[in-house]
Amino acid sequence: MDRPRHQGMAKNTCMRWRLPLVCLLWEVAMIVLFGVFVRFSAEADAHWEEEKQEMNLTSDIENDFYFRYPSFQDVHVMIFVGFGFLMTFLKRYGFGAVGFNFLLAAFGIQWALLMQGWFHSFKDGKILIGVENLINADFCVGSVCIAFGAILGKTSPIQLLVMTLFQVTLFSVNEYILLNLLHVKDAGGSMTIHTFGAYFGLTVTRVLYRPNLEQSKDKQGSVYHSDLFAMIGTLYLWMYWPSFNSAISDHGDAQHRSAINTYCSLAACVLTTMAFSSMLQKKGKLDMVHIQNATLAGGVAVGTSAEMMLTPYGSLIVGSISGIVSTVGYVYFTPFLESRLHIQDTCGIHNLHAMPGLIGGIVGAITAAAATEDVYGKEGFIKAFDFTGEYQTRTPSIQGGFQAAGIVVSLLMAFAGGAIVGGILKLPIWGDAAAENCFEDGVYWEV
Amino acid sequence: MDRPRHQGMAKNTCMRWRLPLVCLLWEVAMIVLFGVFVRFSAEADAHWEEEKQEMNLTSDIENDFYFRYPSFQDVHVMIFVGFGFLMTFLKRYGFGAVGFNFLLAAFGIQWALLMQGWFHSFKDGKILIGVENLINADFCVGSVCIAFGAILGKTSPIQLLVMTLFQVTLFSVNEYILLNLLHVKDAGGSMTIHTFGAYFGLTVTRVLYRPNLEQSKDKQGSVYHSDLFAMIGTLYLWMYWPSFNSAISDHGDAQHRSAINTYCSLAACVLTTMAFSSMLQKKGKLDMVHIQNATLAGGVAVGTSAEMMLTPYGSLIVGSISGIVSTVGYVYFTPFLESRLHIQDTCGIHNLHAMPGLIGGIVGAITAAAATEDVYGKEGFIKAFDFTGEYQTRTPSIQGGFQAAGIVVSLLMAFAGGAIVGGILKLPIWGDAAAENCFEDGVYWEV
Amino acid sequence: MDRPRHQGMAKNTCMRWRLPLVCLLWEVAMIVLFGVFVRFSAEADAHWEEEKQEMNLTSDIENDFYFRYPSFQDVHVMIFVGFGFLMTFLKRYGFGAVGFNFLLAAFGIQWALLMQGWFHSFKDGKILIGVENLINADFCVGSVCIAFGAILGKTSPIQLLVMTLFQVTLFSVNEYILLNLLHVKDAGGSMTIHTFGAYFGLTVTRVLYRPNLEQSKDKQGSVYHSDLFAMIGTLYLWMYWPSFNSAISDHGDAQHRSAINTYCSLAACVLTTMAFSSMLQKKGKLDMVHIQNATLAGGVAVGTSAEMMLTPYGSLIVGSISGIVSTVGYVYFTPFLESRLHIQDTCGIHNLHAMPGLIGGIVGAITAAAATEDVYGKEGFIKAFDFTGEYQTRTPSIQGGFQAAGIVVSLLMAFAGGAIVGGILKLPIWGDAAAENCFEDGVYWEV
Repeated sequence: MDRPRHQGMAKNTCMRWRLPLVCLLWEVAMIVLFGVFVRFSAEADAHWEEEKQEMNLTSDIENDFYFRYPSFQDVHVMIFVGFGFLMTFLKRYGFGAVGFNFLLAAFGIQWALLMQGWFHSFKDGKILIGVENLINADFCVGSVCIAFGAILGKTSPIQLLVMTLFQVTLFSVNEYILLNLLHVKDAGGSMTIHTFGAYFGLTVTRVLYRPNLEQSKDKQGSVYHSDLFAMIGTLYLWMYWPSFNSAISDHGDAQHRSAINTYCSLAACVLTTMAFSSMLQKKGKLDMVHIQNATLAGGVAVGTSAEMMLTPYGSLIVGSISGIVSTVGYVYFTPFLESRLHIQDTCGIHNLHAMPGLIGGIVGAITAAAATEDVYGKEGFIKAFDFTGEYQTRTPSIQGGFQAAGIVVSLLMAFAGGAIVGGILKLPIWGDAAAENCFEDGVYWEV
Repeated sequence: MDRPRHQGMAKNTCMRWRLPLVCLLWEVAMIVLFGVFVRFSAEADAHWEEEKQEMNLTSDIENDFYFRYPSFQDVHVMIFVGFGFLMTFLKRYGFGAVGFNFLLAAFGIQWALLMQGWFHSFKDGKILIGVENLINADFCVGSVCIAFGAILGKTSPIQLLVMTLFQVTLFSVNEYILLNLLHVKDAGGSMTIHTFGAYFGLTVTRVLYRPNLEQSKDKQGSVYHSDLFAMIGTLYLWMYWPSFNSAISDHGDAQHRSAINTYCSLAACVLTTMAFSSMLQKKGKLDMVHIQNATLAGGVAVGTSAEMMLTPYGSLIVGSISGIVSTVGYVYFTPFLESRLHIQDTCGIHNLHAMPGLIGGIVGAITAAAATEDVYGKEGFIKAFDFTGEYQTRTPSIQGGFQAAGIVVSLLMAFAGGAIVGGILKLPIWGDAAAENCFEDGVYWEV
Repeated sequence: MDRPRHQGMAKNTCMRWRLPLVCLLWEVAMIVLFGVFVRFSAEADAHWEEEKQEMNLTSDIENDFYFRYPSFQDVHVMIFVGFGFLMTFLKRYGFGAVGFNFLLAAFGIQWALLMQGWFHSFKDGKILIGVENLINADFCVGSVCIAFGAILGKTSPIQLLVMTLFQVTLFSVNEYILLNLLHVKDAGGSMTIHTFGAYFGLTVTRVLYRPNLEQSKDKQGSVYHSDLFAMIGTLYLWMYWPSFNSAISDHGDAQHRSAINTYCSLAACVLTTMAFSSMLQKKGKLDMVHIQNATLAGGVAVGTSAEMMLTPYGSLIVGSISGIVSTVGYVYFTPFLESRLHIQDTCGIHNLHAMPGLIGGIVGAITAAAATEDVYGKEGFIKAFDFTGEYQTRTPSIQGGFQAAGIVVSLLMAFAGGAIVGGILKLPIWGDAAAENCFEDGVYWEV
């Protein structure tokens, strides 16, 4: 595994033919598959006029577009500006952060529309897409952006595209198992997006362990203005997280409640993050790494339960805890993971997504198990957990058990998938940079 | 009041125990109070299904969430990115600007949900919150962000948290007096947010007057890129101001009209700001300080009247005037306030919020006084000013008088509150920096 | 045309009286014209309560505000942050990029409300404005922002205001010819905004040709952080383009479909742009100029057809092609245009707006010509192309012909208008900088 420095320097990072080939071949594949499979859903099709009459709708405002489009746009900003800029903190890797995030997300959403479409929106041989599919595709790619955070600066764009292809596939399988087979609720994706995405990425970066990475240690820091660019990403993720967690919840009270719970959780998270950031430094000074990242843990940690009757004070508690866990993680766990477990986690996704994702899954299981008809109302109870059809007899405690099972499945999928994909990415054909050239835009960009 | 330099240097700015203690204690208090008081409003509660039937609503789209959530998100961006980045213009205080704004706003919205809830959403011992409460909490915190602008770079994060606690409290009392006792209209907050927030902040900074501040004069300027970061804040405030002024207006025409009036006022304001910025410089060059700030005065100045029948040309007039007043303020008033009145106003909130806020209150009073049934329609007239119940007999001219009274009350509350809070902040226990270390991130941040 | 260096240095760029004069005179003119002509539309007027009853609307949610306001805000961000920051890539012209864009757009939207109002919203001597007019005003100004891209760094703010005045006027005439006389569909403005705006700007910059521009060649490049600022502009344009193309489409399926088609087209465009950016460089490195610009061509190229039944795979094809054309344009056409045709196109709008705009017009014509009742449904077909009244008998193929005619008209208007306006801007009274001072903020800004 150890490569001496001179060998590293000899690595061929030239993308001239490999990257265009991959991009163009895959785009052609997308066009063919979309041509065969993808059509507009009833609400986006020009037949909507007739559909409206059939469905007895009196107004165009009943089109799902108006229930979800504003949230979709917020989620879209989170994926492209939020994740993209969050990772610009590195002093010499801003182009790679925002540019490769752009590349992988743009590819990923196309492949996600197909994969998720086959599982969830397939009808008479066609995938029918509407605004909810766009949100779900963005969500799916969100898990790839998270994994990207672990390997930021150490991989070639081709590796990122290969990882995206596989991760989107596995995400969709995992999501299908959770939502359809286990009948689990996870509208904000604590399990499907964060737990899965983060442990997948951590496994990949473990497999791709670079023992000589200290050669580029000086480039792993930030400079003053790169930290401000990163704060743009942080704030957009933070501000729009209520939209993230409510985007695909049921119309009405569920979307409304999701947004409120997330708002509360995130507000509390900022305070505990600031408190621990100051407390854990000898001089009591605040660390931008914590402010940029741990303040967001509150959104992750209510991803499953936000649409449930978590209540505002429940959200404050969850947010407070997740801010503490995440900040402590940055100070103690990240160095430990690197030195002992050889997990090099560039952005600290273990602190921002993995642990808070687990908290989110657990809180979701508990909140579900604690649900009562009294709290939800008779109809609200059935609607909130979709206890209809074959799930008519499911009780809250059983639901809680299935929610917990969802966490385990997500973890297993992440570890297994990450190990396999990490192995593939280790092949010496993808053009990744030598250790001393990591975290350096000059390798893949005209600077 | 004068402290010699060496005394200043000896100040203990270490936050290690004080900041965590304050943050954690207060977050625990929030959790307890939320636990006792805060629940979901009917439209965010799982009982909504039953509520819908009772209220005879046929569709989930009638949930207030869909009327206000897009505006809420815009307002949220204004508070966190808008105010946060607007203040990053200082060359060495970008972390403090965006980070402390983040801290105080995240704390403030929690406390505001409680304070405003007790006054406005209290029912059977519980505060019932929905999307409108989130907007109002953001609004309330907006007034703190404004006051922060006056003391930017000169206070410790603990001082900011203490100020937030008191200012949110006073804001809520003042708001209650205006909206409930005086029955005043102020949807965009010219009086409650801007006039109150700005004069409160100016009073605080007067009390905290630092005679030796010229010691850090070199750090009070901007650099090229910090000015561009600030423009991000400016533009988000400018673009989303129509959402700010319309966010809590009545459904339908009032929200629609508010957005249009604000759009027009802001457009006009840009032109007069540019004109006066060029005219008042010897060489006719534009000054980024004016472009970053005075262009926003048009939004402040229609804060009260935007939802009224101000008309588009009325908005152009108000916007034009406020741009001129604000720019002239930056050139002539700010130096005067500092040298003569010892008011050190880092961001020039006197020009951006105080004077335009007063203009906004006055324009609102005049517009209300000039209202006629002819212009509003019989029903529209009653709805616009809520002339129902005990206010059934109120005439436009009386309403105008009460509007004017609202300005006076806001000013008195701001002066009195600012003086008291300023006095508290002057205690030598909060860890503020010495004059020569002001405007310098290194004091509170790992740089 | 050649001016020796010393002559250039003698140019008077002082704005002190000229800029204020123009701004203030024009703002006064706006106030007068708004006073005479502009009133609220029925949905923004306080008479809405009565209007609702007349129109038999049961809920305020039927107000057009709720159909279009979220899209309006997205478009607003594209015009002010999107275009403004996209142009900050120049190392020493960030203030000019974002500041002059702000100035011209703020003026332009006022004049556009009038011009477009006279053509489209004029009733009983008054222009009645609502949220759709605000969107259209932003759209109109978008075409000026595009043209600004061609002359960026080489003109005075007065020249920009003069150009805005004329271009908004011509835009409105061209739009009227296309939409009303030719009955052409162009909701996302491939023809009216992009083709017209870009060829207008290219003609203007041709007329203003500066033979000695290589004197400021060193300032025409970017620095690391200016490229990151530009990516903020790029991403906001990219993310919100689905809102741009769907903002004024018919309620319901048409808005929904527009957003989906645009989303797909843009995703594909990113992949082909990255592919060709790498392929066309000797070392295979990616070029930020391409990523910042060519990735957006996919939004331009479906501007006409997005609301039609283009289908998702059709969108992928169009997006893929436009990314390739645009990137190739940056590598080969831009240098050619400059050296052979003396067209100095600072931002490369020929690649981002002109060619993709033409593609968009052509794709729109083809998609319209290929429409069938089978694909659209009987009612959907009539609604999509508005084949009612005097257009009842128009067939798809005839519609396709008129769409094609729309491209030609837009081109002719752009060339003729650009030549005239370019001639006016060449007068030596506007205070433009000498060649050696181009691309330098210090000329018009306090730095």
